[in-house]
Amino acid sequence: MLLNLQGADRPLHRRIYDALKSAMRAGQLGPGTRLPSTRTLAADLNVSRNTVSLAYEQLVAEGYVVAHVRSMMAVAHSAPVRALPPAARPKISARPLLSAYGRRLTADPAMPPAGSYASRPGLRYDFRYGRPVIDEFPREIWRRLIAARARHGALDTFGYGPPAGYGPLREALAGYLWRARGMSCDAERIVIVNGSQQAFDLVARVLLDPGDKIVIEEPHYQGSRLVFEAAGARPIGVTVDAEGLDTTRLPPAAARIRLASVTPCHQFPTGVIMPLGRRLALLDWASRAKAWVVEDDYVSEFRYEGRPIEALQALDRSGRVIYIGTFSKTLFPALRLAYLVLPPALVRPVVAAKWMADRYTAMLGQEALTDFITTGRFERYLRRASTRNAARRRALIEALKLHLGDRVEIAGENAGVHLLVWLNDIRSRDIGSIIARAAGVGVGVYSIHPYYSRPPRRAGLIFGYASLTEAEIRAGIRRFAQII
Amino acid sequence: MLLNLQGADRPLHRRIYDALKSAMRAGQLGPGTRLPSTRTLAADLNVSRNTVSLAYEQLVAEGYVVAHVRSMMAVAHSAPVRALPPAARPKISARPLLSAYGRRLTADPAMPPAGSYASRPGLRYDFRYGRPVIDEFPREIWRRLIAARARHGALDTFGYGPPAGYGPLREALAGYLWRARGMSCDAERIVIVNGSQQAFDLVARVLLDPGDKIVIEEPHYQGSRLVFEAAGARPIGVTVDAEGLDTTRLPPAAARIRLASVTPCHQFPTGVIMPLGRRLALLDWASRAKAWVVEDDYVSEFRYEGRPIEALQALDRSGRVIYIGTFSKTLFPALRLAYLVLPPALVRPVVAAKWMADRYTAMLGQEALTDFITTGRFERYLRRASTRNAARRRALIEALKLHLGDRVEIAGENAGVHLLVWLNDIRSRDIGSIIARAAGVGVGVYSIHPYYSRPPRRAGLIFGYASLTEAEIRAGIRRFAQII
Repeated sequence: MLLNLQGADRPLHRRIYDALKSAMRAGQLGPGTRLPSTRTLAADLNVSRNTVSLAYEQLVAEGYVVAHVRSMMAVAHSAPVRALPPAARPKISARPLLSAYGRRLTADPAMPPAGSYASRPGLRYDFRYGRPVIDEFPREIWRRLIAARARHGALDTFGYGPPAGYGPLREALAGYLWRARGMSCDAERIVIVNGSQQAFDLVARVLLDPGDKIVIEEPHYQGSRLVFEAAGARPIGVTVDAEGLDTTRLPPAAARIRLASVTPCHQFPTGVIMPLGRRLALLDWASRAKAWVVEDDYVSEFRYEGRPIEALQALDRSGRVIYIGTFSKTLFPALRLAYLVLPPALVRPVVAAKWMADRYTAMLGQEALTDFITTGRFERYLRRASTRNAARRRALIEALKLHLGDRVEIAGENAGVHLLVWLNDIRSRDIGSIIARAAGVGVGVYSIHPYYSRPPRRAGLIFGYASLTEAEIRAGIRRFAQII
Repeated sequence: MLLNLQGADRPLHRRIYDALKSAMRAGQLGPGTRLPSTRTLAADLNVSRNTVSLAYEQLVAEGYVVAHVRSMMAVAHSAPVRALPPAARPKISARPLLSAYGRRLTADPAMPPAGSYASRPGLRYDFRYGRPVIDEFPREIWRRLIAARARHGALDTFGYGPPAGYGPLREALAGYLWRARGMSCDAERIVIVNGSQQAFDLVARVLLDPGDKIVIEEPHYQGSRLVFEAAGARPIGVTVDAEGLDTTRLPPAAARIRLASVTPCHQFPTGVIMPLGRRLALLDWASRAKAWVVEDDYVSEFRYEGRPIEALQALDRSGRVIYIGTFSKTLFPALRLAYLVLPPALVRPVVAAKWMADRYTAMLGQEALTDFITTGRFERYLRRASTRNAARRRALIEALKLHLGDRVEIAGENAGVHLLVWLNDIRSRDIGSIIARAAGVGVGVYSIHPYYSRPPRRAGLIFGYASLTEAEIRAGIRRFAQII
């Protein structure tokens, strides 16, 4: 028998095995075909009998070949029944039957948003919100913390970890939240998750059934809305005014709203900070309506005047607030670390949901972050980052005023890492061409449209400024002004 | 006015601010109360007027204080309406209204399993399945890979990453799967997830609605069953025999089974390897029944005789197999890295679900793993680990035979990282006391009960052996033999 023994880098018995199997698949060795004896094939191929035996044994173990009379071998009847064309791709059933959740997820053909993650090439000045700030990030400190933990990690930090997160990190966070946000919470109520997206998702899974009504801000951060909609919830938009969510417009307690999702620290995208009165009104409403309040405290670390107002969580006396904090804006998104501070009654369900979703969050980042916080470096870095961000914000506002003057209106308060800018003399429908022309000169700008259920009449842009230097900000705005 | 200015380490204006707020909360400064002028309070406290002004301004910004006539200040009516006892814990609503999913999750009071993650103290010889193997793990290589990427990572690997996973890792895996498992798959069909638990969860979310019927092995890995049950699916157990899942007992095509979840590489927990004939029969059934097959290839890297049989995925010609691979057994669980190889029709829904669940998996581990694979170190390590595991398995079997002889029956094939051992002369109901006595002498052993829907008549134990040295295995079994 002649076999085509390919792959000179592999052992001979493996090449014989492959050649025999290919022949079976191609139908050259049909079911029941007797194979040559080891002696015969060894002579044909000029190899040892032992080499042939090894190949035969493997084929027997896999069920391709069965022992025949007098220790002769034959091709099994079960194996080549389906002659497998070696390079065929599986048949594509283009429209598989999905679950209701899967159908909701894929109803929008733009889901998941393709290619919106990598930096857009050719954008020298990219004002995209959410880009990581790494020019001043203490990379070397972080590298050392990571490397130290990678070397000395205990056995327990390599194995299965606790679903609520690394204990020392939860303790460190409880201390940080007390110092920075006036929040008095036990570490037991803190759950570490993979970014705030997972926090929203776990909350939605544990609390929302299809058809449940929820309140969202209008305009709003669409990431949380999409999660709630994927869970089948029906969002009711409540208008944001100069004090954030307008609590006088909240549905009555009888409306059976399950939760309200808000960004009181710096409303996204308008940049309004919710004052204390509104905060108390919202909590009152939640208590009466038996609704949960999801407080997305995504950027409370960056407020450039006065101290941050107390978190809703710190004011809550009815156990209604679900607090979400993140390290994506203070450190970097790829760390994938955020946390929930939960009302006691929700700790068990959310931890169970986390355990079910992915057991627990990868340990190395949690460990390094623990060291970063407990050594005081995190808060020192936050102070530096805050000064830096405030200067970048000032540079952006000055550049906008210098180059565009009355043509723009700057919204929002002195906080956060982005600015909402209204373009007074641009119609909303022309914003697409403005963005394209800006990209043509290397400036990335972004419409506020995605954050509104109905696009506003005025054109508006979101400028993320934290990841650009002041010089870049000035140069970018100068170029931008030239094209509008 | 006398104020109790606590906290000598904080700025004076902050201490005044805190003291005033405490007084408001405690009711000492009721709504409408006029505050002393800045001049008066400055004199009372022997500080500058400017310091008092800073404190007042912050209280105004937060809504606690309002400007009164002639620039006098007064306590706002909205703020202290609710006198907040500083240390009060939120009211606990012990039984919050949960979603159907949340109720399924928490129906079992043992969910999430508390404290089963950390090493059990006092167990010198812990045969727990799934413990990480780090005594020979190339920790220093890993540390260097991690440290190099932490230092030199590109801007893109700090920011938001692609939901399907780090591109170069998906490419590296496609090559590895081709070399190691004969799988021919494009990187586009590979999705990186946080451990195989997330793989099961995403599959369940995208494919299963409450009430859907699925096939599971009996006995089975309970981690996947729990995910499917949490999704509301109704599992139908199909018996495992000496060839794995008995395909002749699969429900008829008309039974509308949505998927079958199997462990053909090394059935969990029995250790049986599914031969080719069965594999083809299972795929035939799936194609006729229009059911998905979830192939949990959790330990295919460790087979100590012959080559691994082709994965179901490699035999699939109908696009029905959802393949799950993990690095928890080959590297370590805390890495939280696993992957799906999907039929083309499921790529978009699963990537959308991943994006919704937590955007994407943390980058640093993905990057280091890419380097580990592409430099050939991963496969070299696998060969060493395989030799080491085979020796540990042999040591375990020899020790069991030496000390327990006919009293035990060893099940399963020469593969994997655990052994199923039947105790011939122990009744099933006595296994709990055996385990407790073993723990008393420092030996951790684990019943097979959790893996069975109905406990078998014989007592059986699962021995994970990969994380113990041969000497530890021998000593542990010697001790264990003394107590039974």
